[in-house]
Amino acid sequence: MQASIITIGDELLIGQVIDTNSAWMAQELNKAGIRVARRVAVGDVWDEIWQALEDESEKCDIVLITGGLGPTADDITKPLLCKYFNGKMTTDEGTLEHIKYIFEEVLKRPLLERNIKQAEVPDTCKVLANPNGTAPGMWFEKKFTHNGIEKTKIFVSMPGVPFEMKGIMTETVISLLKTTFQFPHIAHRTLLTAGVGESFLAESLIEFENNLPDNIKLAYLPNYGMVRLRLSATGQDKDLTEATLQDRFEQLQFLTHQHLVVAEDLAMHEIVAKLLIAKKKTVSTAESCTGGYIAHLLTKEAGASAYFSGSAICYSYEAKELMLNVSKELLEKKGAVSEEVVLLMAKGALKNINTDYTVAVSGIMGPTGGSDEKPVGTVWIAAGNKEKQISKCFHFRFGRERNIQLTAINALNMLRQFILDN
Amino acid sequence: MQASIITIGDELLIGQVIDTNSAWMAQELNKAGIRVARRVAVGDVWDEIWQALEDESEKCDIVLITGGLGPTADDITKPLLCKYFNGKMTTDEGTLEHIKYIFEEVLKRPLLERNIKQAEVPDTCKVLANPNGTAPGMWFEKKFTHNGIEKTKIFVSMPGVPFEMKGIMTETVISLLKTTFQFPHIAHRTLLTAGVGESFLAESLIEFENNLPDNIKLAYLPNYGMVRLRLSATGQDKDLTEATLQDRFEQLQFLTHQHLVVAEDLAMHEIVAKLLIAKKKTVSTAESCTGGYIAHLLTKEAGASAYFSGSAICYSYEAKELMLNVSKELLEKKGAVSEEVVLLMAKGALKNINTDYTVAVSGIMGPTGGSDEKPVGTVWIAAGNKEKQISKCFHFRFGRERNIQLTAINALNMLRQFILDN
Repeated sequence: MQASIITIGDELLIGQVIDTNSAWMAQELNKAGIRVARRVAVGDVWDEIWQALEDESEKCDIVLITGGLGPTADDITKPLLCKYFNGKMTTDEGTLEHIKYIFEEVLKRPLLERNIKQAEVPDTCKVLANPNGTAPGMWFEKKFTHNGIEKTKIFVSMPGVPFEMKGIMTETVISLLKTTFQFPHIAHRTLLTAGVGESFLAESLIEFENNLPDNIKLAYLPNYGMVRLRLSATGQDKDLTEATLQDRFEQLQFLTHQHLVVAEDLAMHEIVAKLLIAKKKTVSTAESCTGGYIAHLLTKEAGASAYFSGSAICYSYEAKELMLNVSKELLEKKGAVSEEVVLLMAKGALKNINTDYTVAVSGIMGPTGGSDEKPVGTVWIAAGNKEKQISKCFHFRFGRERNIQLTAINALNMLRQFILDN
Repeated sequence: MQASIITIGDELLIGQVIDTNSAWMAQELNKAGIRVARRVAVGDVWDEIWQALEDESEKCDIVLITGGLGPTADDITKPLLCKYFNGKMTTDEGTLEHIKYIFEEVLKRPLLERNIKQAEVPDTCKVLANPNGTAPGMWFEKKFTHNGIEKTKIFVSMPGVPFEMKGIMTETVISLLKTTFQFPHIAHRTLLTAGVGESFLAESLIEFENNLPDNIKLAYLPNYGMVRLRLSATGQDKDLTEATLQDRFEQLQFLTHQHLVVAEDLAMHEIVAKLLIAKKKTVSTAESCTGGYIAHLLTKEAGASAYFSGSAICYSYEAKELMLNVSKELLEKKGAVSEEVVLLMAKGALKNINTDYTVAVSGIMGPTGGSDEKPVGTVWIAAGNKEKQISKCFHFRFGRERNIQLTAINALNMLRQFILDN
């Protein structure tokens, strides 16, 4: 059973918006045992949307469509779907009541004619309630005959606003798909390695990979100088598929144990959070060049207050002096990007924010600010507790955005190792 | 002239990776006058990649392909392209030298057989140097006959690693495309409104939109409770297209002046940065619930040290007391999410980080931590300078991630208004 995701909207094709919907949808569909074979983005152009419906339903059994359902004139999806599925527009009373409720009770804004029109749907669809917005989801079925065999294809249209789409997917689409089709089981196992190149890793896994059964695939996902390895298995029998996959995954962990960071699909900040929670310890950060990005990562997930206390973000010399007691004299003598300063920043955070652990960073992210002695990408990182602090110099060689991310990930990895060792 | 972007990789179809490449590529192509008509993602499956090449080249003149060029076994794109374009694999000497240089001089890692193999390319392609990595880009041309007319289609294959793809696009692909084709001019103008709903805005722009010439389109892009309006024009004559578009854009600014934030395609943090630079003033942040996200936004762009000094990120009561002098008694009496506390946080930041302006936030981002009196989504925001501070309570009703983003954008907007007024 294969699905295709069509996203509609000029904003995706001119690059004004990054498509995060498709990734989330693919994850949910995968968990339910549905393989996403294709993802297609098309603009707000009638013929191109129509053609995409034709193409994708020929290739896949399930076509999920997001976008193009708003109340404004650049949205042409609904009339198109009405025509494509030979329907007539009709007002859905449940949706109309929901829209009235949202405008009158939640937004407290006047209800306009074009808002009321959002309750109109083709009479050939099943309406899927949108708990988080005004435009409902729509479920269509269409019979196709291909090589003499009749097949029913499912089309689901949802709004492009991420949390509205997510609400409809979670509340109805996934369970409706599960009752409509019989799916094979799909499972993944992911581990993270650090300190080894993709090629080198692959070299050591040739035999393992050659001996994998046909229904298990190995993928290499390098990022931020670390390599994630993912095993994916497909099978009719859930227990058997999971057992075979688990067996191979344990082999993989054994073969990569020298470089293994974690045998789960966790981001670095989640790994650090787990460690801190297990040890019942708190952390702070002292950030210059990352400007709060490490603190943001550590507070992204729910429950961060269990381990995160606070951070001193110090861009200027004055802020480093006021918040972390790093003297202006030392800053002028050694420069902000130096081992002495980053160690004092760590000590200052441990004292002034009073946490068990801390991580401090000071570097030059670019594009300007570099020198011959300290080129763009030079970063000093310190990690420690009140008894001991360690420091290390890194050299990144990319653009500003990536240098900030690389600094944050490497700082968290250094903190992780320090927590494990101390 | 239309382009299609094909991204290859299972990681995109299982949702492990969000595709940021396509948005960036679309922006660059648009600037060069090339319309991206479609974006397609397919997995690491031979037949599906092959079919995508067939389909997309039938629909578009330019097909840009990213991904599937790494040194490991899950990458099948290069042999497929070799076969698709009837070539033989041959070693490209320039690429081989570059790979040797990277391994010996930059990575200082042993060069493996599979790294050397990355220098092999089909002899039917033009090799595009990859300054940031080992896998080169490849440029293919193929003649197709459609309805008796012969047409040359361009295919460009690039690695999926974002900064490698960007290097190849910027250094060679865009200029090669410009010399190969004659493009129409494409131009966009964007403005940002706040404090008005999409439907209401659309209602007031019906006449404007109906009177737009055929080559100009208006799009509504709602996000974070604000609506971005984008006008897009296409034309053969650059000067005429720009002049017509500018004329309509000025009309649009006039019609929306009551709600206009800025008549440029800038993010809220960029607007604040521009204001601060123009006024030669500095800013700090005092963040509880956003955990450094506002500081991160203010330091994302190059040149942030001109206006950003530092931030106190205070998750715990103790951190609020130590870094911002908010007394434990007050925190216990009023709660961290209160007008009194957020105003003291602002005052503490202005004094302890010594900046001209500051913005402070304290709220409950969820999913837990809410109460009847202060449900999840309750946020107090304060903005001010040393003479005056203002505060306001907001209620967001979404998930944690979106609540953090909404808090940050609204805090920056409140700061923006305060700077304009003071």
